[in-house]
Amino acid sequence: MKRTTIHDIARELDVTFSTVARALNDHPAISVATKAAVLETAKRLNYQQNKLASSLRSGRTNVIGIIVPSLDTSFFSSVVHGIEKVMTDNGYSILLYQTGESLSQEQKGIDTFLQSRVDGIISSVSSEAEGAGFYEQICKRQVPLLFFDRAIGQLPVPSVTINDYQAGFVATEHLLQQGYRRIVHLTSDQDLTIFKERFRGYKAAMKQHGLPVPKKMTLKGRLSLEFGRASVQQLLDEKIPFDAVFAAEDYTAMGALQLLLEKGIKVPEQVGVMGFANEAFGAFVTPSLSTVDQQTVKMGEMTAQLFLKLIGEKDYYKAAQEHIVLDPILIPRASSLPK
Amino acid sequence: MKRTTIHDIARELDVTFSTVARALNDHPAISVATKAAVLETAKRLNYQQNKLASSLRSGRTNVIGIIVPSLDTSFFSSVVHGIEKVMTDNGYSILLYQTGESLSQEQKGIDTFLQSRVDGIISSVSSEAEGAGFYEQICKRQVPLLFFDRAIGQLPVPSVTINDYQAGFVATEHLLQQGYRRIVHLTSDQDLTIFKERFRGYKAAMKQHGLPVPKKMTLKGRLSLEFGRASVQQLLDEKIPFDAVFAAEDYTAMGALQLLLEKGIKVPEQVGVMGFANEAFGAFVTPSLSTVDQQTVKMGEMTAQLFLKLIGEKDYYKAAQEHIVLDPILIPRASSLPK
Repeated sequence: MKRTTIHDIARELDVTFSTVARALNDHPAISVATKAAVLETAKRLNYQQNKLASSLRSGRTNVIGIIVPSLDTSFFSSVVHGIEKVMTDNGYSILLYQTGESLSQEQKGIDTFLQSRVDGIISSVSSEAEGAGFYEQICKRQVPLLFFDRAIGQLPVPSVTINDYQAGFVATEHLLQQGYRRIVHLTSDQDLTIFKERFRGYKAAMKQHGLPVPKKMTLKGRLSLEFGRASVQQLLDEKIPFDAVFAAEDYTAMGALQLLLEKGIKVPEQVGVMGFANEAFGAFVTPSLSTVDQQTVKMGEMTAQLFLKLIGEKDYYKAAQEHIVLDPILIPRASSLPK
Repeated sequence: MKRTTIHDIARELDVTFSTVARALNDHPAISVATKAAVLETAKRLNYQQNKLASSLRSGRTNVIGIIVPSLDTSFFSSVVHGIEKVMTDNGYSILLYQTGESLSQEQKGIDTFLQSRVDGIISSVSSEAEGAGFYEQICKRQVPLLFFDRAIGQLPVPSVTINDYQAGFVATEHLLQQGYRRIVHLTSDQDLTIFKERFRGYKAAMKQHGLPVPKKMTLKGRLSLEFGRASVQQLLDEKIPFDAVFAAEDYTAMGALQLLLEKGIKVPEQVGVMGFANEAFGAFVTPSLSTVDQQTVKMGEMTAQLFLKLIGEKDYYKAAQEHIVLDPILIPRASSLPK
């Protein structure tokens, strides 16, 4: 697996490393004859010039790195499509890195991107408190950085997010309007503002209707189909009365829905179910799953447009920090519409 | 968005570019005092050394590039998870590039990876005939390359695939065993062996049961929910009698299933439906979707293991070419089980 390097070309021609490097970069100090010999040898040995090394000079690679927790969910893959579309139209290539919600993987991804000298990093973080340190390093190095969906508020980094407080509010309000009263909330145990805001919206809607939010009605865990199933099982085991489930994520809602149906509990007649994120499967299941849409493609496009605008500025980090906040859209479906 | 370059350090210290570059690479010709000054200045200016440039010498970045058509499907994201798990455990970082089945994007992804000097490329191609040219360049450059699921047969590249002929055969055989006779096949118009092989398996099973395969019973298009819907609509419009649909991909099967139900046609009683790829939603829909599982995580793990084994060889391309072929697993569900 030996690959041709500048050293191989230098050895072949019996010249110095520096001569070959400068010849490949068309340096004026190197004669036309030497350049021709270097190029001929490079071609013959199948040498591929490291454009990134030459980009040390221009500081440009036209590659953007995107960091996401996972591309398994419609949410992230759809936002990434929106970003890709706009960036590709503007001559950029996109590299993706999945963290799997792991901080060490996230740091590794950032290192890989910095080493590849990407022109910028667009990220949706795994943890705000713990991620702050290494994202701050990116700012210090003056590498353009932009957050989408999950941002770290205390850093001077532009962002595109949705109004998660409003999203939690309208989802809960919808359940209340349908007549549900004992609404359980299933949320994440991760340190992320998006989940805290959805939770805050849920509590505000309950309060507005004069309804209590006892602690046992909020369950926290790693959002997943399994967590949704386990949560409903726990509620049933502990005989906690409830007539609706609002999960902060669709797979969790799907798990809750599955277990309710398996236990012979009718959805939406006995228990209403509301998810979050408008995953593709939600429209296919029976009953179809009510959810909140986060305008994913639009979020991706606006993320890319904001990024392109800001890297056009003289100084990325001295430009006015912009924070775009999109509105959530309620998608009521059969799982929360009794009649 | 100015980033510190070697030039900035050189200017600051009033030395040449070459002196700074060599100092950063610990070149013996540079004095200890100069090295110390360069390092101090580099640190003060927040310069991040391009490890990739230094890796020109070692030829190692410990980064592997993966090229996939799309990460929207469970199939590819699940295989990638399998690859990532094994590669991460072995100290590699994974960069992903989505082609969206576009050849120009595929070429761009390969260029980006080569410029980043990845240690190797693992790819699932968009078109065999048209992709052969640029994948051949990767072999010529001696950059390790491995195909998974979709391979280009004429290139000397190892691969991990499934037996698609057998998969098409068992899927069709299952429908025949359930009593279906007029089985329609929905397949891709892409130039890919995987689809041709599934089609060949379908025809062989039909033939074994003495059944004809008239041309109008096979519809080709861009596999998608929309194509599945349009195909069933076309069959109904043209009054072509059929009692089962075998789609070469799950979203297409889902589209067919949706339209059948919308037209009041009972599944599986009147028409059976069989998909392919075991997408996550298949188990959630009603009736649940029969499909063929491709052992995705295992495919990913074996892909990574084969890759690691081969890059350990002296000469990647002179090592014996290995082609691992996995068996498909039939997953019969409600959509093809009348009774």
